[in-house]
Amino acid sequence: MQHVARMSACRGAMAQQLNQLAPSCSSSLFTNPFRIQSVRSFSPSLHVVACRRSSIRCSSSSHSGDSEKPAVGFLGLGIMGTAMATNLIRAGYNVSVWNRNPSKCEPLISQGASGGASPADIASQCNITFAMLADPAAALEVASGKGGVIHGLGPCKGYVDVSTVDGETSKTISGLVKATGASFLEAPVSGSKKPAEDGTLIFLTAGDKQLYEQAAPLLDIMGKSRFYLGEVGNGAAMKLIVNMIMGSMMASFSEGLVLGNKIGLDPNTIVEVISQGAISAPMFSMKGPSMVNKKFSPAFPLKHQQKDLRLALQLAEAVSQSVPVAASANELYKVAKCKGLGDQDFSAVIEAIISK
Amino acid sequence: MQHVARMSACRGAMAQQLNQLAPSCSSSLFTNPFRIQSVRSFSPSLHVVACRRSSIRCSSSSHSGDSEKPAVGFLGLGIMGTAMATNLIRAGYNVSVWNRNPSKCEPLISQGASGGASPADIASQCNITFAMLADPAAALEVASGKGGVIHGLGPCKGYVDVSTVDGETSKTISGLVKATGASFLEAPVSGSKKPAEDGTLIFLTAGDKQLYEQAAPLLDIMGKSRFYLGEVGNGAAMKLIVNMIMGSMMASFSEGLVLGNKIGLDPNTIVEVISQGAISAPMFSMKGPSMVNKKFSPAFPLKHQQKDLRLALQLAEAVSQSVPVAASANELYKVAKCKGLGDQDFSAVIEAIISK
Amino acid sequence: MQHVARMSACRGAMAQQLNQLAPSCSSSLFTNPFRIQSVRSFSPSLHVVACRRSSIRCSSSSHSGDSEKPAVGFLGLGIMGTAMATNLIRAGYNVSVWNRNPSKCEPLISQGASGGASPADIASQCNITFAMLADPAAALEVASGKGGVIHGLGPCKGYVDVSTVDGETSKTISGLVKATGASFLEAPVSGSKKPAEDGTLIFLTAGDKQLYEQAAPLLDIMGKSRFYLGEVGNGAAMKLIVNMIMGSMMASFSEGLVLGNKIGLDPNTIVEVISQGAISAPMFSMKGPSMVNKKFSPAFPLKHQQKDLRLALQLAEAVSQSVPVAASANELYKVAKCKGLGDQDFSAVIEAIISK
Amino acid sequence: MQHVARMSACRGAMAQQLNQLAPSCSSSLFTNPFRIQSVRSFSPSLHVVACRRSSIRCSSSSHSGDSEKPAVGFLGLGIMGTAMATNLIRAGYNVSVWNRNPSKCEPLISQGASGGASPADIASQCNITFAMLADPAAALEVASGKGGVIHGLGPCKGYVDVSTVDGETSKTISGLVKATGASFLEAPVSGSKKPAEDGTLIFLTAGDKQLYEQAAPLLDIMGKSRFYLGEVGNGAAMKLIVNMIMGSMMASFSEGLVLGNKIGLDPNTIVEVISQGAISAPMFSMKGPSMVNKKFSPAFPLKHQQKDLRLALQLAEAVSQSVPVAASANELYKVAKCKGLGDQDFSAVIEAIISK
Repeated sequence: MQHVARMSACRGAMAQQLNQLAPSCSSSLFTNPFRIQSVRSFSPSLHVVACRRSSIRCSSSSHSGDSEKPAVGFLGLGIMGTAMATNLIRAGYNVSVWNRNPSKCEPLISQGASGGASPADIASQCNITFAMLADPAAALEVASGKGGVIHGLGPCKGYVDVSTVDGETSKTISGLVKATGASFLEAPVSGSKKPAEDGTLIFLTAGDKQLYEQAAPLLDIMGKSRFYLGEVGNGAAMKLIVNMIMGSMMASFSEGLVLGNKIGLDPNTIVEVISQGAISAPMFSMKGPSMVNKKFSPAFPLKHQQKDLRLALQLAEAVSQSVPVAASANELYKVAKCKGLGDQDFSAVIEAIISK
Repeated sequence: MQHVARMSACRGAMAQQLNQLAPSCSSSLFTNPFRIQSVRSFSPSLHVVACRRSSIRCSSSSHSGDSEKPAVGFLGLGIMGTAMATNLIRAGYNVSVWNRNPSKCEPLISQGASGGASPADIASQCNITFAMLADPAAALEVASGKGGVIHGLGPCKGYVDVSTVDGETSKTISGLVKATGASFLEAPVSGSKKPAEDGTLIFLTAGDKQLYEQAAPLLDIMGKSRFYLGEVGNGAAMKLIVNMIMGSMMASFSEGLVLGNKIGLDPNTIVEVISQGAISAPMFSMKGPSMVNKKFSPAFPLKHQQKDLRLALQLAEAVSQSVPVAASANELYKVAKCKGLGDQDFSAVIEAIISK
Repeated sequence: MQHVARMSACRGAMAQQLNQLAPSCSSSLFTNPFRIQSVRSFSPSLHVVACRRSSIRCSSSSHSGDSEKPAVGFLGLGIMGTAMATNLIRAGYNVSVWNRNPSKCEPLISQGASGGASPADIASQCNITFAMLADPAAALEVASGKGGVIHGLGPCKGYVDVSTVDGETSKTISGLVKATGASFLEAPVSGSKKPAEDGTLIFLTAGDKQLYEQAAPLLDIMGKSRFYLGEVGNGAAMKLIVNMIMGSMMASFSEGLVLGNKIGLDPNTIVEVISQGAISAPMFSMKGPSMVNKKFSPAFPLKHQQKDLRLALQLAEAVSQSVPVAASANELYKVAKCKGLGDQDFSAVIEAIISK
Repeated sequence: MQHVARMSACRGAMAQQLNQLAPSCSSSLFTNPFRIQSVRSFSPSLHVVACRRSSIRCSSSSHSGDSEKPAVGFLGLGIMGTAMATNLIRAGYNVSVWNRNPSKCEPLISQGASGGASPADIASQCNITFAMLADPAAALEVASGKGGVIHGLGPCKGYVDVSTVDGETSKTISGLVKATGASFLEAPVSGSKKPAEDGTLIFLTAGDKQLYEQAAPLLDIMGKSRFYLGEVGNGAAMKLIVNMIMGSMMASFSEGLVLGNKIGLDPNTIVEVISQGAISAPMFSMKGPSMVNKKFSPAFPLKHQQKDLRLALQLAEAVSQSVPVAASANELYKVAKCKGLGDQDFSAVIEAIISK
């Protein structure tokens, strides 16, 4: 009877979803799981699908409007979220958006998005809901607070958290989401404002493999590559490893610019020399010129870089791994934070190295 | 009379040179300085040019055989020097080579190079002599020891030291070279074995601007870009700045791989993820896979990376600049050296992070 | 009625406070609050009640033989706890002991201590109960788990936690204890095995000032000095600050011994030289000789020193304070932990510096 | 004839050595070598001569009044030198002083010292000459520059350099001194202004063992203990090891005070707590209160502490020893130097940790 029970539970949610789903879903990897031809005959009066988890994929209505595309929710419209949701809208998806401060929804609604009253509202309307939130606390609140997504999720739905949170938070959210019958994918991104706008983010995903496959077409609109890393927590961990190296690199680059300048080398030339060699990295070319000009317009706020270093150091603590370079770099970001640069771009760490 | 004396002194050398120089030198940047039309009328009987330092450029005979190319000397045939000299030979230059251990000259002689009895011998035969030596001590010895280049140098000749040495050594060599009437260019390279072989080195030059321009076509054969950085010492300093950042980056990358591995991430995937994002760098892609496999075949020996960090830290000491990340990284290279990895590739610093 | 009960209970406390200044109470700060009889006669109009829950033993009646000493409980009989409880017994106190592993109680019982079935049992029998537990988890469990002290505490009773825990844990325990009407003092100690045995510990207390004063005679038996630092959490914080410095000092001392030895100085002479000068510290004199002999018999286990560094770094993170020396030292303790030295004395950090 | 004179002089030295074992020399280790009269009568067949160049004062004749004390020279009258020379004068020695800036000699002359025209002048007049100079350059200049001590030294004389210099400089000076036939002792001190005034310095000596024994009574007036460490360079090395640890300790102490203060602990209480425990050190008690009040009156200038850390790090480099804590501390002293605190007391490193 478990199967039936699930079907019942699933009905309300699916009814909503199905109206937004495409009549013929065969053209893409993504739409397959929502194909509901067979389902329709099974229970036409309800316009509802069975949540056929045993049959590996959930299916969707074939006659729900003009599109094959799933309904997509997007929660959290900061710099990153806005850019990502915009790309989904431009790719022709029906996107429902929500943000704590509703005014941020307007630009997206003017591009064709729908609004929603709460995360739960969005989740209940959409097949897949993404969330891009500022920190673990916000991610937890949106997932499970009052009006949180878990109150709108259910079987056949997927929740993809692209926020950068620690593994523990991610596991907690995963547990809450899966308890509703929905599937969960953690998918923190590598990349900041520009890659978000250009659709060249990198997704570091972990969790439900099936949801990963379903979400792939969406991830491919927002990003240029995606990795599936296994169990929940691994995406967060990979993100932290990458950001730990990034933090050390930026601090080291800053040391080079400041020291070079002090001994009489033109820092612009240093940036150019570096751009030619084995250590050239997009980050250096992108940030170097503005750092030389002391412009720190935030693409990735320094306080977030420092937080990621802190979390990475905690990971290292947990396994007693020595990471002295990261530890040194972290101290510089703290100095920069104390100097009031937390909301500037993380490249402002160079100011921590310049002693007056 | 000093001017005349110099002219006399210059004659023998120039006579040799001129036979290798082109009748019409206008086609390339390089040959310009050796254009000797006006000179020919000045002293035709000697087939020799005056070393007209006051007129900015030395000139050469117009009827000296088939080639416009200057005679090039190359001292020091280690991994780097051999690759660089080979590229000059392949580009059609007459290259005279010398190495402390003469057996290393043979492969190049078999490709068409001439040998020489001593650095002085090479310098006296060639218009421009390059040196790629292991360390400051070797650079000084080859420049000014018994049979050293200064005993073969003189006006109209150029000495280009592409070794990586500290600024003080470079200034000493510059002084000794210029006292002979020759010009000097320090030109340490960024890049190791592969770029040397591929002719994609980066030259960080400083010293005589005119020699820089004369040497440019040769540098362009051996490298993909070149920077002129002003007074002698700046090339060395730029090299150290770049290598300081490189050393920190490699240490940080190692920390990421080791920590990631310890918490359950596949280090090969870490390498791949990094290769996609803002911190991707050729060094990571090149070294990452072999580091994962604990292969440290030396392209840039660890002890040299550690030496460069040490020299960079001394630069920083000299101007009281704090560089805590580089200082931390340096400590790791020392640990690796103590573990007997000094002759391995510098990427073996990862072994300093793995605690057993 | 809880309010009333509390009021009654509270009156007792008030009476105690009032009577601390009474002439009859001059013999000892500590004994005053528990000399109920004399208090009653001194101020009958207050209808002061005895602390009933303290029952038989806790309300030290005036005719209970030779002693005005409070009944003292001691929970946690590791190296430290055993030494501390022994000193209380020797000073003539009635001490009731409990330990998770009851076999550790026997030596103390043979010296005159009573046993108890649970922390709650001890707490209900005693005026003041001390706890010396391994870590925050154990401290919380003993405080509030099944049979925990809060089930035996109540008004007029005091709970003094001398374990080293983080401030958050301390605040949690404080809240739980105070909810019973009892008072709470956090009192982590500075000092390890030897000072515990010699009664020369240092108590870093915070919380109820009155309990601090009541406990003072007991603290003075177990220690040589005590500090009252204000609100709960400050004792833990002070302990971490001290241990952070201690961790850095020990790591630095290790660096000196290893480097000195490597360049040909006798490490025993280094220890002796240091013992003469401005940086001489008991720790160096105590640990130096055994470190030279690679003996690391644990007085303060390395894993605890590393934990304290970690907690101190977290404190520093919380206020964005840069502490690069402590961060560096911490990395060395992690290396030592990875080498399997976590259960050795913290001076074994010297092994992290010796590279093989 | 200089050679002959030296030969004669040299015999005296030999005689001294031989007679150190003589029964008549047992009263004091120190006075033996200079009691020429008794030596001569003891072994006339050797034609032993007095150390003529020492002339009037240096050969302490047996009938020269109440004293057998050697004539003592003192070069360099900074904070340390003045205090040390004063103690020698007070102890009844004939002290001849010299300082680059002669005005600093006056206070000592007013206490009974003689002046001298140059280091050579002092050295020629005295049996043992001490030098306390600011840095290696000054030490070399005074030893071997124009009017330097080597022009006044010779057999039977001793030169004791109590400056803190690197081992190489010490070895150079030793070589120059010994070439004159004189003996040399390096004897850097541990301790700053106060111990110098109180006569409680610690001497870390190395070099001529005999001179060490001769100088012992003088060292014992100026200091409370002395170590003989073997070959020249070891004194310098020991000093650097001690000062390396001192530098790290002061930086760590600063971190503790700043962090503690930031989280609400009274830094004066931190100083007091530390003074009670295993990490208590005279330095903390001495410097702590003034650091809390931001008073950095220089006893040991910060720039000298930074120099010693730099030299210690160079020692560590030379043997590839990792010393990450010292490296971190050094970075802080550089920050402090950059903030213009180089001439303040080294405890001003605390200002490098306070980020504004």
